[in-house]
Amino acid sequence: MRIDPESTASKDVYRVMIRTILPRPIAWISTRSRDGVNNLAPFSFFTGVTSVPPSLCFAPGRRPESGERKDTLRNVEDTGEFVVNVVTERLAREMNESATDFTPDVDEFEAAGVTPQASLRVVPPRVAESPVSFECRLLKVVPVGPDGPGGGALVIGEIVMIHVDDGILVAGKVDAGLLQPLSRLGGMEYAGLGERFTMRRKQPGDRRIK
Amino acid sequence: MRIDPESTASKDVYRVMIRTILPRPIAWISTRSRDGVNNLAPFSFFTGVTSVPPSLCFAPGRRPESGERKDTLRNVEDTGEFVVNVVTERLAREMNESATDFTPDVDEFEAAGVTPQASLRVVPPRVAESPVSFECRLLKVVPVGPDGPGGGALVIGEIVMIHVDDGILVAGKVDAGLLQPLSRLGGMEYAGLGERFTMRRKQPGDRRIK
Repeated sequence: MRIDPESTASKDVYRVMIRTILPRPIAWISTRSRDGVNNLAPFSFFTGVTSVPPSLCFAPGRRPESGERKDTLRNVEDTGEFVVNVVTERLAREMNESATDFTPDVDEFEAAGVTPQASLRVVPPRVAESPVSFECRLLKVVPVGPDGPGGGALVIGEIVMIHVDDGILVAGKVDAGLLQPLSRLGGMEYAGLGERFTMRRKQPGDRRIK
Repeated sequence: MRIDPESTASKDVYRVMIRTILPRPIAWISTRSRDGVNNLAPFSFFTGVTSVPPSLCFAPGRRPESGERKDTLRNVEDTGEFVVNVVTERLAREMNESATDFTPDVDEFEAAGVTPQASLRVVPPRVAESPVSFECRLLKVVPVGPDGPGGGALVIGEIVMIHVDDGILVAGKVDAGLLQPLSRLGGMEYAGLGERFTMRRKQPGDRRIK
């Protein structure tokens, strides 16, 4: 099958993207509005960027119908701060509660039934129940596409503090089997991690190269 | 455990990032150099961006010692084109072969033992064995961090053609269980998908909101 974006509805192209860019980690992002309301929402267009400075990014799309910015992006642009909380299999239900499209006056920590814990370097609280949280300061918002439906932005944040639950460490390192990260798939699907295995990256000297 | 980037070596902060931003999909990226040599390399700081235009991004870090750009970024900046091939469990070994740090004159399709197949809209070939490929044109390179060790960039590409193997479709949609995407974890670890489940996103009307 070929999907030509020039002759395919953008929502259908998007459906193929979210069913094939897999598996996606979930950034559960806490922000605080200028009015002091805590916001918490999941984003699966999320990844790391650089080690100097330690940075990560996520892509909040605009609302499909109105084309407005989501509360998370508005709060990040207003305050320059956010926290990325890692979502685990155990937190799937709570994460899904916070994905509801609430009005901006609703405290989504309360709606999701999770506990706001004060951050050390930024104002938005982290999710106490999440075993890993990254406190971030905004580096850059890169707009992509139109300022309307279908458009969005890449938000790049500098990591200024990381919290890791000691319960997921083995010999001082995070163990993926204890972290049990949740994956976002296409449609309404999610998954846990499957069987893990290791592969050593070869060095050029390991084998004959023409 | 708290990791304070101000007082922690950047490589140690990075190790925490790659062990906790999980699971990561793998973009197996094909490019062609100005000299006509095909390049193929895996990147796991990779995700989608917007639906209008359909876009995705990846973050090629600079080489840890020299701080130079990797061949993939150099080729993308020189030619404005690349193909993202999705990596599956069955292609794990070949993907890992292409992760070797070859000199720029090595054709990594050959080194990895995969077949270059002509793309429709861009010059770099796609990987014939990969069940999903996105032909992309460069939208923007966003530099992040220093032009040296630890720095990097976000490369944002517009998807101009998608190829999907009919063998991974069920009722016209990509099935994650047939795609069998490979996940990149920390260290040398990889994983397949675990058990899948669905959660419906609630609408505000579904429940009483204060």
